[in-house]
Amino acid sequence: MPEPHAPEYRRCPVSGRWVIIAPVRAQRPLSLDHARPHHRERHESDPCPFCEGAEHDTPHEVYAVRRPGTAPDGPGWSLRVVPNKYPAVNPHGAAPELSPGEGLFASVPGVGAHELVIECARHEANPVRLTDDEFAAVLAAYRHRLVAHGEDPRWAYATVFKNVGAEAGASLAHLHSQIVATPVVPDAVRLELDTSADYFRREGGCVFCDVVREETAARTRVVAEGGGFVALAPFAPRFAHEVWVLPVSHDSRYESLTDVDLHDLARLLKRVLGAIDKVLARPAYNYFLHTAPLRVGDLPHFHWHLEVIPRTARAAGFEWGSGCFINAVPPERAAAELRAALG
Amino acid sequence: MPEPHAPEYRRCPVSGRWVIIAPVRAQRPLSLDHARPHHRERHESDPCPFCEGAEHDTPHEVYAVRRPGTAPDGPGWSLRVVPNKYPAVNPHGAAPELSPGEGLFASVPGVGAHELVIECARHEANPVRLTDDEFAAVLAAYRHRLVAHGEDPRWAYATVFKNVGAEAGASLAHLHSQIVATPVVPDAVRLELDTSADYFRREGGCVFCDVVREETAARTRVVAEGGGFVALAPFAPRFAHEVWVLPVSHDSRYESLTDVDLHDLARLLKRVLGAIDKVLARPAYNYFLHTAPLRVGDLPHFHWHLEVIPRTARAAGFEWGSGCFINAVPPERAAAELRAALG
Repeated sequence: MPEPHAPEYRRCPVSGRWVIIAPVRAQRPLSLDHARPHHRERHESDPCPFCEGAEHDTPHEVYAVRRPGTAPDGPGWSLRVVPNKYPAVNPHGAAPELSPGEGLFASVPGVGAHELVIECARHEANPVRLTDDEFAAVLAAYRHRLVAHGEDPRWAYATVFKNVGAEAGASLAHLHSQIVATPVVPDAVRLELDTSADYFRREGGCVFCDVVREETAARTRVVAEGGGFVALAPFAPRFAHEVWVLPVSHDSRYESLTDVDLHDLARLLKRVLGAIDKVLARPAYNYFLHTAPLRVGDLPHFHWHLEVIPRTARAAGFEWGSGCFINAVPPERAAAELRAALG
Repeated sequence: MPEPHAPEYRRCPVSGRWVIIAPVRAQRPLSLDHARPHHRERHESDPCPFCEGAEHDTPHEVYAVRRPGTAPDGPGWSLRVVPNKYPAVNPHGAAPELSPGEGLFASVPGVGAHELVIECARHEANPVRLTDDEFAAVLAAYRHRLVAHGEDPRWAYATVFKNVGAEAGASLAHLHSQIVATPVVPDAVRLELDTSADYFRREGGCVFCDVVREETAARTRVVAEGGGFVALAPFAPRFAHEVWVLPVSHDSRYESLTDVDLHDLARLLKRVLGAIDKVLARPAYNYFLHTAPLRVGDLPHFHWHLEVIPRTARAAGFEWGSGCFINAVPPERAAAELRAALG
């Protein structure tokens, strides 16, 4: 097979949206059978490249939680962060200029970092089966990588996300999260930064702080609380049973969380994911972090948060064509169902 | 079961995005089993509400192609347009004010029209098995409904779309398209209108016309041409094997197509969908129309087009979290594959 060409950022001339064209992604192995998403694993006998003992199957680790005395890229770890072997973006080269002005067909090299957080050494597919300490270690790995990517002046943002189940886009079952560092702040984050900055100018406060205050007073959309965090069914969710987890006190940067915070957040998030599993019979889902861009310091108008989106309904022609989502489950009902299912 | 509450438009306080909360959608029947999308029909024996003879299962038709002498809502038709029995929006009531300024939790009644175009009387699930005349009649029904919705001053836009296959969000297999008329121009269309208006101010021409001229000269991303239309793999596609169909000559309004145009468009679109079926082994896909808003007249900067998006890869946590799409198939390769498969 010929070498696929290097990844590119391309701008759509009629919408202005940037996409990543990444031919190498077509070569990645799939342990989850995408043609039959409910047959969880295609070849149970295929060796899993993320299990302990298969460290040679992944690029060199950039961060790990290891037993004292064990060597990098060998056994003895409980969490590893490695570059993605099939990256959507390429870590080599200077950050490209992404100026929107020039030409109909704007394309620049797809420079960025794409890493995997392998969340445990054993072959485990369900996040709620991590121990609280293991889950907290995953959240600490996100913090570590956000700090590390902030030290590379090429990256403006690092998107932390997780795909659980083939229908949510996971290609391997073994628990892992992903981090993609890019030279630009992605559109979805930019939209929230701009909208919340407008709100701050107009109302003099952080919209997230106001939402948290109103929601915790009204309680109809509160799913769970604990350790300075709150889990909400947001007022206008795109997805049925969508849940956001936010710190109660203002904080724009995920990186500022302490180890104690991370343990509290892990416990809350595990309870929420367990409730989602129970209410929706172990659905596929994604979660992702929205936090302040790298190196911008504390923002008075923005509040980091984690969004969990169960993938029980599919975005269809209306959603893709209009950008507007139809959700059949009011968040008030979703919150009540999830509250009733909390462990 | 208690009556579900009426649909609402709700604005997300932190992104500004509008969503439609539509509890009645949870009650619609599913002939396609969403838990096992590849088992095409769940109960082959269940009567199909879209087949000839089942007209009592749908609300009163608002448009039909019928044999002379047959009565509305009875047999004798080859195409019907009916209100959706499980509408995402509610046709009764005044158009709400959607001003973005007020309050944290903005919600207005979900007023709009939601119609189905039942594309043939026999039980058929694949658009390429329509005859050219049948396909042209579907495209003519879109034109008729856009004109009709333009006469209702409450609607600013009508989104025409089609879901083929359960993985693309179709709930019934029998061929149908959908039309959702709304009091606002949806975000995805607004984005293209704004971007193309900027381009027009900057460059003095229509960006779509420039794209068509460059693409038909370069030919690397042209899939097919015919009768004044061109099918392209767009320069920056969000989805693998995404195809856009556009008129070669400037035209912002789909409603301006003549009957001859519709037949030419039908032939081209059928060839393109046939090639997609062949290359991707009959994938699920959506298509949707982007056209000028209702009653705004001809726009010099905008050009109607139809976008076809095969659903072979799933938007995952990165896409939902960042708004940026990773596409493993360069459009140059997609176009070459589709060209080779054209009938």
